[in-house]
Amino acid sequence: MSELDLYEREPVVPPEDYVRMHHTVIRDFVCEIFTAAGLSDEDAQIVTDVLVTADLMGISSHGIQRVKRYVDGLMHCCVNPRPNMRVIRDRGATALLDADNGLGHVAGVKAMEIAVEKAEKYGVSLVLVKSSHHYGIAGYYALKAVEKGYIGISVTNSEKLVAYVNTVTKSLGTNPIAVGIPRRAPPPILFDSATSVVPVGKIELYAKLGKAVPEGWVVGSEGRMLSGDASKVLQEIRSGRAAILPLGGLGEEFGGHKGSGLAFIVDIISGVLSGAAWGLHVRYTVDTAPANVGHAFAAIDIESYMPKDEFYRRIEDYVNEIRSLKKHPSADRIWVPGEKAWYTMMTRLRIGIPIHKKLCDELNSIAKTLGLSRKLC
Amino acid sequence: MSELDLYEREPVVPPEDYVRMHHTVIRDFVCEIFTAAGLSDEDAQIVTDVLVTADLMGISSHGIQRVKRYVDGLMHCCVNPRPNMRVIRDRGATALLDADNGLGHVAGVKAMEIAVEKAEKYGVSLVLVKSSHHYGIAGYYALKAVEKGYIGISVTNSEKLVAYVNTVTKSLGTNPIAVGIPRRAPPPILFDSATSVVPVGKIELYAKLGKAVPEGWVVGSEGRMLSGDASKVLQEIRSGRAAILPLGGLGEEFGGHKGSGLAFIVDIISGVLSGAAWGLHVRYTVDTAPANVGHAFAAIDIESYMPKDEFYRRIEDYVNEIRSLKKHPSADRIWVPGEKAWYTMMTRLRIGIPIHKKLCDELNSIAKTLGLSRKLC
Repeated sequence: MSELDLYEREPVVPPEDYVRMHHTVIRDFVCEIFTAAGLSDEDAQIVTDVLVTADLMGISSHGIQRVKRYVDGLMHCCVNPRPNMRVIRDRGATALLDADNGLGHVAGVKAMEIAVEKAEKYGVSLVLVKSSHHYGIAGYYALKAVEKGYIGISVTNSEKLVAYVNTVTKSLGTNPIAVGIPRRAPPPILFDSATSVVPVGKIELYAKLGKAVPEGWVVGSEGRMLSGDASKVLQEIRSGRAAILPLGGLGEEFGGHKGSGLAFIVDIISGVLSGAAWGLHVRYTVDTAPANVGHAFAAIDIESYMPKDEFYRRIEDYVNEIRSLKKHPSADRIWVPGEKAWYTMMTRLRIGIPIHKKLCDELNSIAKTLGLSRKLC
Repeated sequence: MSELDLYEREPVVPPEDYVRMHHTVIRDFVCEIFTAAGLSDEDAQIVTDVLVTADLMGISSHGIQRVKRYVDGLMHCCVNPRPNMRVIRDRGATALLDADNGLGHVAGVKAMEIAVEKAEKYGVSLVLVKSSHHYGIAGYYALKAVEKGYIGISVTNSEKLVAYVNTVTKSLGTNPIAVGIPRRAPPPILFDSATSVVPVGKIELYAKLGKAVPEGWVVGSEGRMLSGDASKVLQEIRSGRAAILPLGGLGEEFGGHKGSGLAFIVDIISGVLSGAAWGLHVRYTVDTAPANVGHAFAAIDIESYMPKDEFYRRIEDYVNEIRSLKKHPSADRIWVPGEKAWYTMMTRLRIGIPIHKKLCDELNSIAKTLGLSRKLC
């Protein structure tokens, strides 16, 4: 595994623009910001852990660069810093949590805890959440179930960014699907994927790196494919003149109906069925009314179906078989879902998380606005 | 809706090669074949209904053209015509059904019945099946739950046809995901999709129509993309010299890790966790040992989360919003998942199912071999 010893899934270029910091230093600082913005200590710790975990995993689009967005929502409109999150329906293996417009991270952790308790009792469970906000990386919650030995599933809707198949404007969220599968030893299997051809974070990363967006990721609202300069493409998406394509692309030839169909189903279960908003109606974190994001969490008790040892043995066999497949000449390596995130996390726990200097300034400025005297770097 | 009055999703060309027959005539004939091949009357009716429903829905690849495959499996090896299907684990909202190497259609109907009963009691359920065979269209079972007013989910693994991301040989099944959502009035929403870029049935259809396979569907085992003559491409896949690509394509740029990740997760839940075979080990219906296919069925009681009327109202709003989106200039229409199949079914219930004359001959010949004197056409 030596080639993975310093593995990071995201390139850190140019390195002189970044400061590497130990995750605990970042945690303390971010947690203080959220507390100053009105969250309870416990909730501040939860949100911080979700964000810092994303950075550790090399998903910086969902990491502490989002602190500003959440703090803006908390300070202006419409995130409730002290939500009274309540289970408003509870029946057998199901529950519905009203997140009272609090942050999605807090709701997600609570809901997955309930899902695991219910799976312990009934073998499987499905807990929905309404009146929530953006919850960060979907995989975080799946891993919360995995930590307790359960298969965890987490899906959410999100503000519109993606075109429905054969249409050209934003109507669906990137509506990710995350599934975590325990293994005898880490890394667990973690599938965590937007149902769009790429998450918006990937286009943001391309913009930062000055890379060109390939044809097939984004459609303009007049029907033309947009490619090239990622900053410009991003601007078109933000301004409503373009949309990210669903997984499978614009039409049906390569399965655009599959990607947008998955996004639609995720939205029906997490949004329509929960009582949250859906599609066109899900708002951004900072807006004139609450986002009303909906999430869904399921847990599966492996022991309902087979002894855990047998399951672990079978999973190891499967993983080994995947590793032995014939690699395409263009591929660097055959990856199992979750490995890239896991090995990046192992690297960054050791050598620190690279924080862009501009992000550092932004966080310092947020802290100052909130009356804190500390600086991150 | 007049433009949909004679809608059929599959072209019937050239029409002179087909005979249109009323579905009840086909049903009687096919059912008699399965009874003669050793199935009980009840099981023969179930299998027949799944196959004829596929033909009604315009998914002829999964229709009665598969009778030969199943009968061959029943007569030679290794489908058990009189399986003793038993629930071998039953705990709360979960169950595990051993299909005793019977046909997947029979196992699927039984398992979804259990899933609905359990969802009625616990709000949600997950029933797995092992030691099964190919079960036809995944959507059939999702619709069985929908008929009873539940959200139904059905997934299965299948014999290897698809390449894992960045690899070039067959290692995964087309492992479909089907989700059915009830509506106040038909058609229900039915998402039913292989996790590969296309199902093999689409390549078979292209071969029949003499259409060219586009680049991006199939990779040869030396890493070259295969396109063009669909019959040749199909031959390469069948002979093990090529594989269908996952949804999202060969590499990660357009999400091949997403399609193959979904196939992998479907396989873990339906195959690994159930005790069935997975990936490389799932066999074809006719082989030297049982296929050991695994399936998974979930049902969700809408009333656990909100009154059904409210859910129906919300779904209608969502569907109407989708219909109002801005269509891409190249698209004929904005379709909601399940509509193509539904309107084809409505058409074919009225004007009959087109049966290719060669298929008719094949079915007549199967009937004759089984000692039946009737002919289909």
